[in-house]
Amino acid sequence: MIRLGITGYGNLGKALEKLAVKAKDIVPVAVFTRRDGVTSDLGTPCVSYSDFESYKGKIDVMAICSGSANDVPVQGRQLAGIFNTVDSFDTHALIPDYYKDMDSIAVKNGTVSIISAGWDPGLFSYMRLLFATAIEDGDSYTFWGKGVSQGHSDAIRRIEGVKNGKQYTIPKQSALDSVRAGERPVLAAGDKHLRECFVVAEDGADKARIEKEIKTMPYYFDEYETVVHFINEETFVKEHSGMPHGGMVIRSGSINGTAHTAELDINLGSNPDFTAALVLSYVRAAARMSAEGLKGAKTVFDVPVSYMTDIDINEAIKHLL
Amino acid sequence: MIRLGITGYGNLGKALEKLAVKAKDIVPVAVFTRRDGVTSDLGTPCVSYSDFESYKGKIDVMAICSGSANDVPVQGRQLAGIFNTVDSFDTHALIPDYYKDMDSIAVKNGTVSIISAGWDPGLFSYMRLLFATAIEDGDSYTFWGKGVSQGHSDAIRRIEGVKNGKQYTIPKQSALDSVRAGERPVLAAGDKHLRECFVVAEDGADKARIEKEIKTMPYYFDEYETVVHFINEETFVKEHSGMPHGGMVIRSGSINGTAHTAELDINLGSNPDFTAALVLSYVRAAARMSAEGLKGAKTVFDVPVSYMTDIDINEAIKHLL
Repeated sequence: MIRLGITGYGNLGKALEKLAVKAKDIVPVAVFTRRDGVTSDLGTPCVSYSDFESYKGKIDVMAICSGSANDVPVQGRQLAGIFNTVDSFDTHALIPDYYKDMDSIAVKNGTVSIISAGWDPGLFSYMRLLFATAIEDGDSYTFWGKGVSQGHSDAIRRIEGVKNGKQYTIPKQSALDSVRAGERPVLAAGDKHLRECFVVAEDGADKARIEKEIKTMPYYFDEYETVVHFINEETFVKEHSGMPHGGMVIRSGSINGTAHTAELDINLGSNPDFTAALVLSYVRAAARMSAEGLKGAKTVFDVPVSYMTDIDINEAIKHLL
Repeated sequence: MIRLGITGYGNLGKALEKLAVKAKDIVPVAVFTRRDGVTSDLGTPCVSYSDFESYKGKIDVMAICSGSANDVPVQGRQLAGIFNTVDSFDTHALIPDYYKDMDSIAVKNGTVSIISAGWDPGLFSYMRLLFATAIEDGDSYTFWGKGVSQGHSDAIRRIEGVKNGKQYTIPKQSALDSVRAGERPVLAAGDKHLRECFVVAEDGADKARIEKEIKTMPYYFDEYETVVHFINEETFVKEHSGMPHGGMVIRSGSINGTAHTAELDINLGSNPDFTAALVLSYVRAAARMSAEGLKGAKTVFDVPVSYMTDIDINEAIKHLL
């Protein structure tokens, strides 16, 4: 049994705990949180994050499920000196530095830290490298959605007169069609996605002004085709409370002169649940790599699927190969 | 540089040679063939298959590109005792026995043999295991096509009055739609694919009889929706000389109670060229695993993508992660 620690008890940490409780080969030992009075419905002890050092030797892998932007880079650097770790750090521009730091800390400590192991970065990264290797002469495209963008939803909610708001990023069908047809188009960000907003306005608010403020908001919306729908609070709660997401990685190019395309396409009912399922699989990989004496920072590029799964490998050879 | 041997000089062997000549890290040393008088336009020495033992120590990895059904299982068992090998053995029912034999031969010899490393088995197998791991409570579906089935094309050409024929396996849109919508249908083989045939009839042949013989042919066609087109020789040569193929692996299921689907979709201008590109990437992996002291039979489940690629891993972390 792999003894699992979880830091952070938001959507991701809770989803991971649920999966870990069900897994045959993993037992959640503790949730580490900085908030007071947190308890788990599933019975996992919730302890103070600051107590993590006292769990040395009691936890095989620590899954860092705190906020990716600010908390993961701090906690990762703290925890990699004591535990094997898995995180889904997703600030792409900072990943190379994070990788270097995590590598030197984990090598020194003799542990394994698998970084950026969600779906993007993570599964999508794996496919980008696999596709680029198989179809060497080609172009790669990543589309996101249909899914909720937290940052853009926050930006809408900051506008005066907005009571609630949610923004969906949606791949443009025309761009998808062109890429899938092997036309290898050059696409700017605004060519690939459109932004659909669902807004609950305060009573008496000027909807025309709100719509204009959204559509002209620099960086967030002004370079995109943006659609704004005003709805009432009841509809908002009923239809827009989920966290769906998804996306595609598409490679289009040529092998020995003939056209080839390869595509990964995911449709997620729940962004945190899918991320948690991947983090759980990399928890297995971290435990196994560590048991084999490996150490240092690893990425999804370094991990074979046989290390990620609890499916018996002989059964897999028989039924899935 | 990885010194590559290639056995078999049909479509796959030739496609692999072309890619190996272009690769920065691989040099083709020899093509091994049982046919006399074979030469290579690309300058690779073509030698007799029976001379393979004299190449011990001169070749790092032998790619077995001979006929999968009859030749690969024989040559694999011969060559694994002398070289690291990669093959794309694809008789699914025989893979477990082949794996066991190759493992004991390679372990004894201290070499690595990566078996069944094409696209199905191969890439599709990898995705089946990865998807089943990520979406544990779900159903998996594999569709093939649109692509040429060699066996079914041969069967058509054996009918009296048929001058030439080609059969395309095509996924049924209704089945794809149902799977993608998360309906998790139970599908028989005939529910998933239809068979489209292009036939050149001999002058004066009874086309109605030919069409009936095709559509009622046991096992090959009788359980499938089958469409037959009669065309002339000129059109056949112009429009049906390629070897396109493709397919999808789709997993549909639930994580923590919400619906998720994941799909790999490939469209191949040339079946042998894509297979060769994958075999080439596993040649790199076999060389590296062997250099690290690993031995025995391996499958695609055991190989991380970082072992398959010639893309610099730091560049990959920076730009693809």
